[in-house]
Amino acid sequence: MAKLDNGPARGTRDFPPAAVARREAVISSIAESYASFGYRRVETPALESVERLTGGQGGENEKLIYKILKRGLPEHLPPGTVLSDLTDLALRFDLTVPLTRFFANNHAQLPIPFRSLQIGSVWRAERPGQGRYRQFTQCDIDVLGEPTVLAEAELLEATAAALIALFIEPITVRLNDRRVLSSIALAAGVSGGTTAGYFVTLDKLDKIGWDAVGRELAERGFDARVAASTEELLGYLADSSSEGGMLDRLGDALPDLGVDVLNDLGQTASALERLSREHEGMTFVLDPTVVRGMGYYTGQIFEITHPSSSSSIAGGGRYDDLIGRSLGRDVAACGISIGFERVVDLARIDPPDLGVAVLYEGEPSTDVLAAARAIRKLGKRAALVPRKKATRQQLDSLYSEGYRAFVTFEDGRPATPRSLGPDSS
Amino acid sequence: MAKLDNGPARGTRDFPPAAVARREAVISSIAESYASFGYRRVETPALESVERLTGGQGGENEKLIYKILKRGLPEHLPPGTVLSDLTDLALRFDLTVPLTRFFANNHAQLPIPFRSLQIGSVWRAERPGQGRYRQFTQCDIDVLGEPTVLAEAELLEATAAALIALFIEPITVRLNDRRVLSSIALAAGVSGGTTAGYFVTLDKLDKIGWDAVGRELAERGFDARVAASTEELLGYLADSSSEGGMLDRLGDALPDLGVDVLNDLGQTASALERLSREHEGMTFVLDPTVVRGMGYYTGQIFEITHPSSSSSIAGGGRYDDLIGRSLGRDVAACGISIGFERVVDLARIDPPDLGVAVLYEGEPSTDVLAAARAIRKLGKRAALVPRKKATRQQLDSLYSEGYRAFVTFEDGRPATPRSLGPDSS
Repeated sequence: MAKLDNGPARGTRDFPPAAVARREAVISSIAESYASFGYRRVETPALESVERLTGGQGGENEKLIYKILKRGLPEHLPPGTVLSDLTDLALRFDLTVPLTRFFANNHAQLPIPFRSLQIGSVWRAERPGQGRYRQFTQCDIDVLGEPTVLAEAELLEATAAALIALFIEPITVRLNDRRVLSSIALAAGVSGGTTAGYFVTLDKLDKIGWDAVGRELAERGFDARVAASTEELLGYLADSSSEGGMLDRLGDALPDLGVDVLNDLGQTASALERLSREHEGMTFVLDPTVVRGMGYYTGQIFEITHPSSSSSIAGGGRYDDLIGRSLGRDVAACGISIGFERVVDLARIDPPDLGVAVLYEGEPSTDVLAAARAIRKLGKRAALVPRKKATRQQLDSLYSEGYRAFVTFEDGRPATPRSLGPDSS
Repeated sequence: MAKLDNGPARGTRDFPPAAVARREAVISSIAESYASFGYRRVETPALESVERLTGGQGGENEKLIYKILKRGLPEHLPPGTVLSDLTDLALRFDLTVPLTRFFANNHAQLPIPFRSLQIGSVWRAERPGQGRYRQFTQCDIDVLGEPTVLAEAELLEATAAALIALFIEPITVRLNDRRVLSSIALAAGVSGGTTAGYFVTLDKLDKIGWDAVGRELAERGFDARVAASTEELLGYLADSSSEGGMLDRLGDALPDLGVDVLNDLGQTASALERLSREHEGMTFVLDPTVVRGMGYYTGQIFEITHPSSSSSIAGGGRYDDLIGRSLGRDVAACGISIGFERVVDLARIDPPDLGVAVLYEGEPSTDVLAAARAIRKLGKRAALVPRKKATRQQLDSLYSEGYRAFVTFEDGRPATPRSLGPDSS
């Protein structure tokens, strides 16, 4: 065999022990936070049918699907072969599409509302770049079958709790509603068919500012009055001194907005305000510029931001129409996804305690093996480690790996016990 | 969108909450058992290059590889297109090939010997059948860089401990050596090029008996004397009253067997005998008919069996040549893989404790939300559950799901507390 490059496939990563320990600790912490709200883990396969994944629910992500070759095809393809005939399965690009299939398939056995937690890998053939990977972990919670904004309030409270448990602070929860966005578009004079492009540009306001938004809207062919009315409208809304004031102004400025939309926003807002009074590390804003990428949202949408991350660290919303596409009847649904890779970087996690390193010379004697066994019987971890000449250096390095106690054997017999404190590492 | 079948892809499975909880509990227990011996988790991507996976290390499994279509190919393929030009990546079919790549790529940063634990999904395009899945979990430990049978003894001790911690008993550890098998083949008159077929048949002895083995060897074109000598030889070996006696007979009957092979077998055997005296649920046998499928083993091979499972529940061996194919120089290596799916079925796991169900009528009042919050502050889990008319039935069903305490609200106020004991479920 020719010698191959031993790196992982482009855009993917190998995780050595310290990295896995960190990721696993974050997963445990998140899972426990969500479990305390009644969310339970669900798992679906990595592979779904190509048909389902290209059904139009994934937006831009559908272009990035890894498709699987059918088995048993001939090496020499007959002339006229069409690419799409060669594949039947594909790797999932998110956890929402598989969840809707799972729910449609299993709803009869599930409690309603069903609280789902999913933590798993997804795959996208992205151009690899800083913080962008072709295989990465997503962490989603969803409430299925709860039509009221109790779902929104709980998802956000649970996610704030999960982030704060990882010492990820300060965080800001930003709340909006797809129906508010539609009314803004209407009020700004955007015609029906062009709202998608309008929202994509509006979504960038935070990062690029009004001048650039205006230029981009012009490039997209919008009349200059669209940018002007939008700026004026959002300026009027932002000028309120409280979230309650903002709701009043939304009602004033967007007369076509249903009173139920405002009432629901008021209810979620008051739950979040109460929460922000309890947690110093959390603030809350009603933000009519929050857009969220996916096309399937139908009601409230939200994201959570952190000062050290330019994009949001969590986001989601209500998607009451999506399950209907699999099940044949609509089911109220609402979800939020944590940007797991960003959260792993931000989390404050204690280093692992690897227990006792039992150091021996040459081949381990019966005494060495018995010592390790005795330590394990006490419920402690014990790893056999061949001793190096530079013992002090080796102990320092083992300490920094996570070993917290040492037993050294010389000539097969226990040597004077050594202990290391944090000051010696 | 046309309504699709909502089942998971053929040969794959959805795991609802109770199944995930069970699998996660087994994974935690296994990971903790192995961690107490110093094994640390490593993770590699699901995707590897097709080249690496078809490098000849995977035997029959290479035929079952799921290959990924390259991105950006035209829908209408030019005439003369060759299938193998259309793929670049593939899903891993085991965890050993990725581990050798990982080690070759990262060895400079890893402690030697390196103790690796991998728990992850693998994919094989098998014909789906009872207990055979197209995506399943493997659980491997490997010791890399330890040339002595200390590795074998430790892998087997740690794996026995992991199984016993899951109350999987009684187990039998069966030990053999590839070099013993080669000597048996030589002594039975099997010529060099035909040993592979001979071993495949010999491997079935346990299940099909001598008559069928004789017939199958004849079908494979072996002289009748091969079957006769093999039966005689194995009969002589099996007639010893102890493992020590078996070793003496191996030395007698197989004069070409190196004395180091016998010494090493003696060392692993005495470690396993000591272990079997300590654990009532574990027995140990030297079994010269153990073969193991993979072609890459170079020394001792072993498997662990359980009376309720017709195939082994764990198996592995030494493979000192495999890392060399990636790294360019040989590294001593030894590993064992637990049949995770079988172990999940056999394990005795406590049902999950889901904490407190807070039952409410209509929409939850502020008091209901506050009660749930107060329970969580005490470090208990609390799930909001809409109350059904048939409360008693609902409580029974929640109890069997894993909820252990209940708070019920009537007209927004807490009702008389109810508690349920195991007798009421």
